[in-house]
Amino acid sequence: MKKVILAPDSFKGTMSSSEICRILAAGIHAHYPDAAVLSIPVADGGEGSVDAFLTAAGGRKVKVRVSGPHLEEIESFYGLLDGGQTAVIEMAACAGLPLTQGNPHVETASTYGVGQLIAHAAAQGCRKIIVGLGGSATNDFGAGAAAALGIRFLDAQGCAFLPVGESLSRIRRIDRSGLLPALEEIELIAMCDIDNPLFGETGAAYVFAPQKGAGPEVVRLLDEQLRAVSQTVQQELGRDIAQVPGAGAAGGMGGGLTALLNARLQMGIETVLDTVGFDRSLDDTDLVITGEGKLDTQSLRGKVVVGVARRCKPRGVPVVAMVGDIGDGIETVYDEGVSAVFSINRAAVDFSVAKTRSREDLALTIDNLMRFLRQIGF
Amino acid sequence: MKKVILAPDSFKGTMSSSEICRILAAGIHAHYPDAAVLSIPVADGGEGSVDAFLTAAGGRKVKVRVSGPHLEEIESFYGLLDGGQTAVIEMAACAGLPLTQGNPHVETASTYGVGQLIAHAAAQGCRKIIVGLGGSATNDFGAGAAAALGIRFLDAQGCAFLPVGESLSRIRRIDRSGLLPALEEIELIAMCDIDNPLFGETGAAYVFAPQKGAGPEVVRLLDEQLRAVSQTVQQELGRDIAQVPGAGAAGGMGGGLTALLNARLQMGIETVLDTVGFDRSLDDTDLVITGEGKLDTQSLRGKVVVGVARRCKPRGVPVVAMVGDIGDGIETVYDEGVSAVFSINRAAVDFSVAKTRSREDLALTIDNLMRFLRQIGF
Repeated sequence: MKKVILAPDSFKGTMSSSEICRILAAGIHAHYPDAAVLSIPVADGGEGSVDAFLTAAGGRKVKVRVSGPHLEEIESFYGLLDGGQTAVIEMAACAGLPLTQGNPHVETASTYGVGQLIAHAAAQGCRKIIVGLGGSATNDFGAGAAAALGIRFLDAQGCAFLPVGESLSRIRRIDRSGLLPALEEIELIAMCDIDNPLFGETGAAYVFAPQKGAGPEVVRLLDEQLRAVSQTVQQELGRDIAQVPGAGAAGGMGGGLTALLNARLQMGIETVLDTVGFDRSLDDTDLVITGEGKLDTQSLRGKVVVGVARRCKPRGVPVVAMVGDIGDGIETVYDEGVSAVFSINRAAVDFSVAKTRSREDLALTIDNLMRFLRQIGF
Repeated sequence: MKKVILAPDSFKGTMSSSEICRILAAGIHAHYPDAAVLSIPVADGGEGSVDAFLTAAGGRKVKVRVSGPHLEEIESFYGLLDGGQTAVIEMAACAGLPLTQGNPHVETASTYGVGQLIAHAAAQGCRKIIVGLGGSATNDFGAGAAAALGIRFLDAQGCAFLPVGESLSRIRRIDRSGLLPALEEIELIAMCDIDNPLFGETGAAYVFAPQKGAGPEVVRLLDEQLRAVSQTVQQELGRDIAQVPGAGAAGGMGGGLTALLNARLQMGIETVLDTVGFDRSLDDTDLVITGEGKLDTQSLRGKVVVGVARRCKPRGVPVVAMVGDIGDGIETVYDEGVSAVFSINRAAVDFSVAKTRSREDLALTIDNLMRFLRQIGF
C-alpha cells in the first residue's frame, strides 16, 4: 500500500475531522511507514471550516477587521486557496454564536460582516468564494451580508435600512443595482450540510433559533419574518426559495445567499472534494478511508461517507468507512461504493461511556485494520 | 480465497459455537461461493460438546442406558470419532443439571453414569476417551464414575460404599485393584475450560454449588468434604491435587478423574484442535476465523482465540477473531498470532440491548469483512 487518502467527517460531539485524520494517519504509519497519507479533514461549514480547507488544500489565512454579529468591530479571517483563486469564508468567523458572548439577541444580530469578508475576498481577485454556513448567531436571511455587498433594502416609505431577523417583513423593495460588480464574475458557493427549508416547523427559526437564545415568542416572530421575506423575494426577484432544501441554514442565510446573490447551495463534502481536486488525487491511491459519527439511512443523502464513496466507485478504489455507530439498513451504502464499514465500538456499552474513549477506540480500530492488511499482503 | 477454517468459541449467553459457524459460513459463501469452509464448532465440555465434536470431526452417536444423577436409569449417549478410536463423552449427558428436573440435591447426586459411559466406550476398543466436564449437577469428586469403573471406596469399617458429595469424608481407603483393565491402555482426557482449584473460596463448592441449588450450609459442607477427600487421596494414592487448576471443574470431577483414573486435564480448545487434526488442515488454508464473547487479558490463558492463533502463527496463516467485546489491553493477542480482531458491536448500546441482536450483528460483521476482502483481491 503506497498511498491512502483520509476524508472523514467529524464524529459529532466526540472528535473533529482533523483529529480523526491525525489518529488514522498514525495508525497507518505504524504498519506502513512509507505510505503517503493525504489528509482531507472535511469541513461542515461551521467553525473550523477555514482551517480544514487550509489543511486539505494548502493556502493562507487572511485577517480582516469587519463587523461582528451586533455590528461591533472585530478581527475576523478567511482562507485563500489555490494561489488566490478560491476564498473560503466561515460565516461563524464574524456572525457566530460564541462571538455574542452569552448575549445572543438573535432577533437583532446581523451577517453584515460576512458580506464584508466576501467583498474583501472579491477585491483579491478570487474566482470562487465558498461561504460555510454553520454556527450562526443570526436569523437575518443573510440580508446583512447582502447589504454589505451593495444591495439596498427599502421599507414602505422607500427608506433604505439594514434588515435583521425581527425586521425582515419591513422590506418592500430589493434594489440590486448597487451590487458589487466584481461579484458578477465570481462563483459563489453556500456550503451547508442540512436541508431544512426556510420557515415552518422544520425551518430556520423553529429548529435553530432556540439554540441561539430565542424563547417561544421570538421564535414565532422570526419564523413570520422569514415567511414574509420569502414572499417579498418572490415578488421582487421572481424567485421561490421557500422550499429549497438548505434555505433554512444559518438563520435563513442559505435562502438569502441563493435568492439575493445567486449563490449555489452545495453539500460540504462536494465542495471540499472539488476544492482539493479529490478526483485527480485518486489516480495513484490504493485506499480511501472516510467516516462519520453514525452511518445510517440519512447518510445516503449525500453526506460525507457516501459523497466520498460515489467518487471512488467508478475508479475502483476501495473505500473503508470508520464510524461510530452502524445504523440499521445501511447495506445500500455498499452499492454506493463503500467497500467496508468498521465501527469503533469495541464493547457493548452505552454512548455515555463509549464517547469518553472514542479516540482510543478509533486508534485501536485503525491499528487493527492496518495490521491485518499488512499481514495479508495488501 | 480458497479455504477458510472456522473455529469459534460460543458467545456465552448469546450464540453457540455451531450457530456462529453457520452464520460465518453463510457470510463467506455470499462473497466467495466456491470457498471450502471447514467448520469446527468448539466444544467447552458442557452440553452440546458431543455434537460439536461430531460436526467438526465426523463420527456417530452411541446411545446407552446408564444411571442418571440420582441413579435413576436414563438414556444417555456419547460420540465415537476417528473410526472408533476416540470417544467423546459429555458428563452432562448423564449427570447434568437439567436431568434433575428442578430437584438437584447436589449433595447426593452421583457421576456413576459417567463411569458407565466410559466403560461402554472402553468396551468398543477406543484408544482415547475425552470426558467433557461442564453443566454438572454433582459435587462428588467423580467418585461415582470411578466406582462404576471398579474402584472401591471403603469407610472406617472397611465397608465399600458409593460416595456422593455429602459423604466424601467417610472414605478411608481407596482400592484401585478392581479397576477395569481396558483403562490401562486408554488415554483419558478430562476436558475443561476453567481453572478453579478443588476447594476453598474459588473451589468447586463455593463457586458452582449455588448454581446447583445448594444453600450456604450445603455449600460449606460440600467444601469440607472435598477438602477431606483431597487429604485421603494424598494419603492413599500419594497425589496432591488440591491446587491443580481445573480440579474444581464439574463438582471436583476434574480432580477426581486426575487422581483416581490418571486422566489428563486439558483445555477444551487444545482437545478439539488435536482431535480434528487442525494442524494438518492448515496446510492449504488461506484464513482462519475464530472468536469468543469477550476477548480480554483472560483470553491469553489458552482460551479459544489464543489457542487457535498459537497454532496458526508458525504456519503464517492469518487469523481473524470475531468477538463480542474487545477488552482493554488485548494488544498482546497479536503477538500470539491473531492478525485482526473485529467486534460485532455496531452501536454504542448496553449489552442488554446488544445481546438481542447478536446474530444480525455477527452476520453484518462477516458480510462486511468478506465483501472487503473480495474487493481488495484477497
